[in-house]
Amino acid sequence: MSLPPSPGPAPAPTPAPGPVRPGDRAQVALRPAESARVTGGFWHERRRVNAEVSIPEGPALLDSAGNLHNLRLAARTATGEYRGELPFLDTDVTKWLEAACWQLAETDWKEDFAQAEDVDRIIRLLADAQQDDGYLQSYYQVVRPGLRFVELRWGHELYCAGHLIQAAVAHHRATGREDLLTVARRFADHIDDTFGPGRPVDGICGHAEIETALVELYRETGERRYLDLAGYFIDRHGHGLLNEGDAHGVAPGPAYCQDHVPVREAETVTGHAVRQLYLLAGATDVAAETGEPELRAAMERLWEAMTTTKTHLTGGLGAHHAWEDFGDPYELPNERAYCETCSAIASVQWSWRMALLTGEARYSDLIERTLFNGFLAGVSLDGLRWLYVNPLQVRDGYEYHGGDNGSRRALWFTCACCPPNVMRLLASLPHYLASTDTDGLQLHQYATGSYGGLTDGGRVAVGVDTDYPWQGRIAVTVDEAGPGEWTLSLRVPQWCEQYTLEIGATPAEQVPEDGWLRIRRTWRPGDTVVLNLGMEPRLTRADPRVDAVRDCVAVERGPLVHCLEQVDQPGAPGLDDIVLDPTTGLTVKHRPDLLGGVTTVVGSGRLRARPAGQGWWPYRTTRDTGRDGADTPADTPVELTAIPYYAWANRENGGMRVWLPTS
Amino acid sequence: MSLPPSPGPAPAPTPAPGPVRPGDRAQVALRPAESARVTGGFWHERRRVNAEVSIPEGPALLDSAGNLHNLRLAARTATGEYRGELPFLDTDVTKWLEAACWQLAETDWKEDFAQAEDVDRIIRLLADAQQDDGYLQSYYQVVRPGLRFVELRWGHELYCAGHLIQAAVAHHRATGREDLLTVARRFADHIDDTFGPGRPVDGICGHAEIETALVELYRETGERRYLDLAGYFIDRHGHGLLNEGDAHGVAPGPAYCQDHVPVREAETVTGHAVRQLYLLAGATDVAAETGEPELRAAMERLWEAMTTTKTHLTGGLGAHHAWEDFGDPYELPNERAYCETCSAIASVQWSWRMALLTGEARYSDLIERTLFNGFLAGVSLDGLRWLYVNPLQVRDGYEYHGGDNGSRRALWFTCACCPPNVMRLLASLPHYLASTDTDGLQLHQYATGSYGGLTDGGRVAVGVDTDYPWQGRIAVTVDEAGPGEWTLSLRVPQWCEQYTLEIGATPAEQVPEDGWLRIRRTWRPGDTVVLNLGMEPRLTRADPRVDAVRDCVAVERGPLVHCLEQVDQPGAPGLDDIVLDPTTGLTVKHRPDLLGGVTTVVGSGRLRARPAGQGWWPYRTTRDTGRDGADTPADTPVELTAIPYYAWANRENGGMRVWLPTS
Repeated sequence: MSLPPSPGPAPAPTPAPGPVRPGDRAQVALRPAESARVTGGFWHERRRVNAEVSIPEGPALLDSAGNLHNLRLAARTATGEYRGELPFLDTDVTKWLEAACWQLAETDWKEDFAQAEDVDRIIRLLADAQQDDGYLQSYYQVVRPGLRFVELRWGHELYCAGHLIQAAVAHHRATGREDLLTVARRFADHIDDTFGPGRPVDGICGHAEIETALVELYRETGERRYLDLAGYFIDRHGHGLLNEGDAHGVAPGPAYCQDHVPVREAETVTGHAVRQLYLLAGATDVAAETGEPELRAAMERLWEAMTTTKTHLTGGLGAHHAWEDFGDPYELPNERAYCETCSAIASVQWSWRMALLTGEARYSDLIERTLFNGFLAGVSLDGLRWLYVNPLQVRDGYEYHGGDNGSRRALWFTCACCPPNVMRLLASLPHYLASTDTDGLQLHQYATGSYGGLTDGGRVAVGVDTDYPWQGRIAVTVDEAGPGEWTLSLRVPQWCEQYTLEIGATPAEQVPEDGWLRIRRTWRPGDTVVLNLGMEPRLTRADPRVDAVRDCVAVERGPLVHCLEQVDQPGAPGLDDIVLDPTTGLTVKHRPDLLGGVTTVVGSGRLRARPAGQGWWPYRTTRDTGRDGADTPADTPVELTAIPYYAWANRENGGMRVWLPTS
Repeated sequence: MSLPPSPGPAPAPTPAPGPVRPGDRAQVALRPAESARVTGGFWHERRRVNAEVSIPEGPALLDSAGNLHNLRLAARTATGEYRGELPFLDTDVTKWLEAACWQLAETDWKEDFAQAEDVDRIIRLLADAQQDDGYLQSYYQVVRPGLRFVELRWGHELYCAGHLIQAAVAHHRATGREDLLTVARRFADHIDDTFGPGRPVDGICGHAEIETALVELYRETGERRYLDLAGYFIDRHGHGLLNEGDAHGVAPGPAYCQDHVPVREAETVTGHAVRQLYLLAGATDVAAETGEPELRAAMERLWEAMTTTKTHLTGGLGAHHAWEDFGDPYELPNERAYCETCSAIASVQWSWRMALLTGEARYSDLIERTLFNGFLAGVSLDGLRWLYVNPLQVRDGYEYHGGDNGSRRALWFTCACCPPNVMRLLASLPHYLASTDTDGLQLHQYATGSYGGLTDGGRVAVGVDTDYPWQGRIAVTVDEAGPGEWTLSLRVPQWCEQYTLEIGATPAEQVPEDGWLRIRRTWRPGDTVVLNLGMEPRLTRADPRVDAVRDCVAVERGPLVHCLEQVDQPGAPGLDDIVLDPTTGLTVKHRPDLLGGVTTVVGSGRLRARPAGQGWWPYRTTRDTGRDGADTPADTPVELTAIPYYAWANRENGGMRVWLPTS
């Protein structure tokens, strides 16, 4: 099918379009703020680079990498070979499209958003590529025709549909236009005709993603069958439908696709991290819409199992390079932390759905940690270079031999899932910062801007002014006060040891309940609340079961995890021999010149002298050589400068480490 | 081609057939002992199980796994689909064949060796499957005809040829028969016609192996061109001949196949561990035959880089599951140690070639450590179950979801490279124990048996009687004394802190030179030397750059690395919370009832109490929660029983750890 080339003027979009919009009858504690706008400070600058550099670069990259060419092959408007070998290359396009749509929805960029034409062009391409029955995936159309919905374990067809649907929902919410939504619905309808009880195929996709997309399509269209289909896909995990390919043991087992146990019975997060997290985001959406207690309880249990035993300090998830797997409890390696950028994004998406479902602050605690650390490291400061994996250590002697998964930034990837995923999260970031309920407004994250929405008493709105995360001062001004009493809730971050609160310039002694400072009163426009979070740098230790960091500390300040990079340590030729002295103090220095302006933390330590005459065997008996394995010459004192982890890998290559030995 | 079904009687084999037989003009310091026979003790029992259980099980497993079927397809004596998806399935057959041949060569099993018929049958099958021009690999003959020697990076054709050649050399040395050697030579000649300067293909195999095989074929046949071809393949590594497949970044880079740098210029071992080690074994063979100093120097440099920075305490090699890669210097994880059984075998093969080339004891130090630990763990005590990877830790909560590479034993693997590789090393083990030079006899490893060979003064031989590694007493009796003075050299293991020596019941004060106790005199039959190695258990620490084991110790005794297994710790519900107290003593207890008879080491420690109220986040600030991250209730004292690592995973499943925290 094809669409008219120039759609008419778009109706005015709903305020603050965002990826999650619980239905009217959804059983959620909170709803995303109706208006959320970031106008200055830390995230504004990162979003500016995303909007002005990363997203504009997208179409050319998708062209040169072949993604658009493949869709043209499917549309029969181009000839040649399918480019690349991965079946899900269409999703790089639809994720970019989603990112561009969220950007398009923002007044800051809307007027002269140069990608508006690209958006239209690519939507037309997708419509042209779609088959008459609604099917749309270039790989199976071009490379493996006739094998539609046969190779579910690896084919990624429903995964592709999911990202198409999410892009279409974004486009509809941003512009009010129906063209991409029509394409998505036609594909969704085809899938609904194909899968489910009494339909030709009883199956699930090897990569979860369609579940959360279908729930949002239900929310956007009101078509209940999309929600039912999402529920079907959730329910059919864990019944061995994806056994194909498992006969040969070099493939991963069914846990890779979360097909080893039904979702409601799972005790921990397992298998491919992004697959697992997208699945749980979808299951949480279903729980929100259906109110099913068992599914909600499973979500809470799995989230806690994940954070307690399988989350890196940076919020990064996924311990294994092999099969991009979560790994065992407390197995949290440093140099081989996988921590795919996409899994950080998926974690934010799932946790936000949990925050809305439950109203609990801890989910936004994890979102904050992930956004500032494990997620943001995925894109360079200039918005042009990317990390697929986000290790917590790069060793002296590290050799990069190419490929997507090295500890070096690349301009793009063969499997380029991460860059457009970063783009869409940054473009939709305001959506994750604030919420409302019948009783008031909740600020989950702190970024200069304005946030508002409807409570039982009417519309309320606040402005936030802050230099967070460099400073702990968060000034909130009531802009729209509504008629009666309501509660302004401020999250006191889990990392925060001390804070002060002023309400109308008067110190207030209020303690948080479950992470929320809930300030209830009749507000007037101009009323102010100032939350001052203590930003003393701190040393952090891990649960002793995290073997990888035994006898180590990490430097943190506010929500930021810090790290040493070789380039900042003039006194040390390498980081493998660094020891931090945890008993001397840490000092803080803001460096506007460095890495776009960062606050560094400086500590004292020493460079461990290498024992002489170690020979060829690096293991020593304790008896004859002392505690550290050999007679040790004198160590050299060194000053150690730690930068925020998100800013690493933006200068010359070298060692890096988050966790620092203390003896 | 096909052979007559019943070959005539075989000529008497050369004594002590073994896989490495340097040529007459090879520039080696040592040569394998002409006779080497293990008749009792530790290795005799392991070899008995290999000969009586593992090897006899082989043909049925190769039948049920499809390997023999695939060869029958190639021979056109069967019909159906090629079974399995791997191109190198023939090598499971040829490695088993090599193992059976070494066994066949031993008088202990020769007379009624039930596999003699299987050997003949499989040799006929290989001959039938061979094409008229000498080519022989079932995968390319059946699955991808017409693509011969095109897909060198992944096709494993020369790798398959290498194992065929090694089996043929074994068969010839064991039986004197020419039938399999003829098959191998025809394939080798075809390869020689195809590869090299002025030939159709300038290329190398993605998996090294043929190099060492061709040198041995040269040694066996005297055909110089096989040595030249081996040298060509060595020299052509590092010139980007295997770039195919690297265009898509999800494949590993050229270092995976050691195609990133010429062998002589490499500074460290890199990439796929088994590929790297087989390549270096071949390069060492070439250096031995050509005497080229540059190649020898590269081998010494690379061996030292490997042992100093990339070797696990068990001798295991390969830190990454992903791409079975060596990893970075000092990156030696525990739970994710790959340490493929095949890489331990390859390490023994390479180090033995280095020992012969240089005469240095350190190579046999590593062989001993590898044999008793990283290698032997690869096969269960009953000879029926296998480990592909050999981790140094299994966590509480470890979940095995199937596949070859889990921390659980399997009866066979989809990629079954390891089991027949174990079989061939155990079957040829006596070959690795002793050597001679013009001046005398060297005992590299200690196993009850008899060892002898030719020196300048004539034939010498000794008998060894020992209960090593349970006891440190090694009694050597001269059986054949030769006419004049000669040197009996005994290796003092690198782990050994103290020993005593008696020559003819008289204490002798002799110190080792570079690891060798060299005792030179005129010997008479019946003369005795008793070496008593101190077997006190010891605690071992790693170089502090090995981050994975910071603040940990390992228990060792003699050549054995020990480990805790959950089943032996009745006082602890899991091993993640175990702490060893390194200040209390270790006691030793021989347990003839346990695991076929092992000496255990018992120490004292405690079970770390879990801090209360940790909540959902496993990281804590040092300031408010004390050094270990939380207020700690009282720990529970526990007795800890460590078994030899090689014997782990022979009982019920549970946690395991080699490295034990001390605080």
